[in-house]
Amino acid sequence: MPSYKPTYFDGRGFAEPARMLLHIAGVPFEDVRIPFEELMPGKQSERFLEMKEKTPFGRFPVLSVDGFDIPQSSAIIRYLAKKFRYTGKTPEEQAWADAIVDQFKDYMESFRQFIYAQRGGKSEEEIKKIHDEVFVTAKEKFLEEIERILEKNRSGYLIGDGLTWADLVIADHLYTLGNLKELEVKSLEEYKERIYSLPELRDYIQGRPQKEM
Amino acid sequence: MPSYKPTYFDGRGFAEPARMLLHIAGVPFEDVRIPFEELMPGKQSERFLEMKEKTPFGRFPVLSVDGFDIPQSSAIIRYLAKKFRYTGKTPEEQAWADAIVDQFKDYMESFRQFIYAQRGGKSEEEIKKIHDEVFVTAKEKFLEEIERILEKNRSGYLIGDGLTWADLVIADHLYTLGNLKELEVKSLEEYKERIYSLPELRDYIQGRPQKEM
Repeated sequence: MPSYKPTYFDGRGFAEPARMLLHIAGVPFEDVRIPFEELMPGKQSERFLEMKEKTPFGRFPVLSVDGFDIPQSSAIIRYLAKKFRYTGKTPEEQAWADAIVDQFKDYMESFRQFIYAQRGGKSEEEIKKIHDEVFVTAKEKFLEEIERILEKNRSGYLIGDGLTWADLVIADHLYTLGNLKELEVKSLEEYKERIYSLPELRDYIQGRPQKEM
Repeated sequence: MPSYKPTYFDGRGFAEPARMLLHIAGVPFEDVRIPFEELMPGKQSERFLEMKEKTPFGRFPVLSVDGFDIPQSSAIIRYLAKKFRYTGKTPEEQAWADAIVDQFKDYMESFRQFIYAQRGGKSEEEIKKIHDEVFVTAKEKFLEEIERILEKNRSGYLIGDGLTWADLVIADHLYTLGNLKELEVKSLEEYKERIYSLPELRDYIQGRPQKEM
């Protein structure tokens, strides 16, 4: 069995679906979490700067597999999904999972703008403007798309009749939205809960570090 | 043989690597190009609005394969690359191709901002600011990454010892940068030229509609 080592900040964010997938597959892994104190702008630790320097693109998450470093969260999760057979059953299902995750990635640009506005110390008014005009607009559009896909597919999963990595990506973000009081769509709360209650995930989710996002 | 029908605007943009891949594979396809006159804001044609309404996410490109619609450019090209064996030879090569294309997608957000600033009628000064501070900064970082990958890999391709879909995505964007007088890295010009001169592509590239981007 290869050694798997995902490295990310001490949050869920773009690494959590990979951690979830490793738990579902029952594969032991070294869960490297860089504490937020080490990455504060202007006060970054030597250790963090060295780790960052060694990543392929100067960014996290990175997944090391027997020392081979894979950057970019979607590439990481797709890689694991392929290994453990959660990419979808046909080339068409696989393409549909890829498309949903890329649509998610596009929407996340608006989420990123909102979070950075908050963290970057912008005025209340500016934050509200970005929240209302950029983030909420994109969020509503994206969540409607996810709702429509689930309604049409009817299996309780986004693609085909079983779990794919796209479910982990989307469900974990819905959980984040819930934490931020930004999720008001009942069918999507139920969908998130359904994924979160999978027998292979329940224990991990109950025991994992509690993080807002 | 399934029927392949990519639909996009009458440019290269996010659809061209898929068209190139179909040509490399020697597969006939219906190349649907929506003229720009039909998509002018405020003057969009009925036909365009109907086509857009029918896409999975209200956006182009979409690839129809025997009537099954795949949205999102990376999902489309990866799907074709999988069918015709241009994804990379091992799961690790495939993950690396995925990661490079996702890194490209992140950088393209800055390119998009620059192009939209120009098209959105912003002042010269604002356009220059976005060009210099957003686009060029991101471009230089991204091109350095691509240079480093090519230097390290030594085969003339980004990944392994043969052509992958990532080469088509990157080379076609380098061609766009060249058209815009935004490419001043000799080794990358040579790389672009190498991909563009592949025997399976040469004829298509010489005969295809000439588009700036």
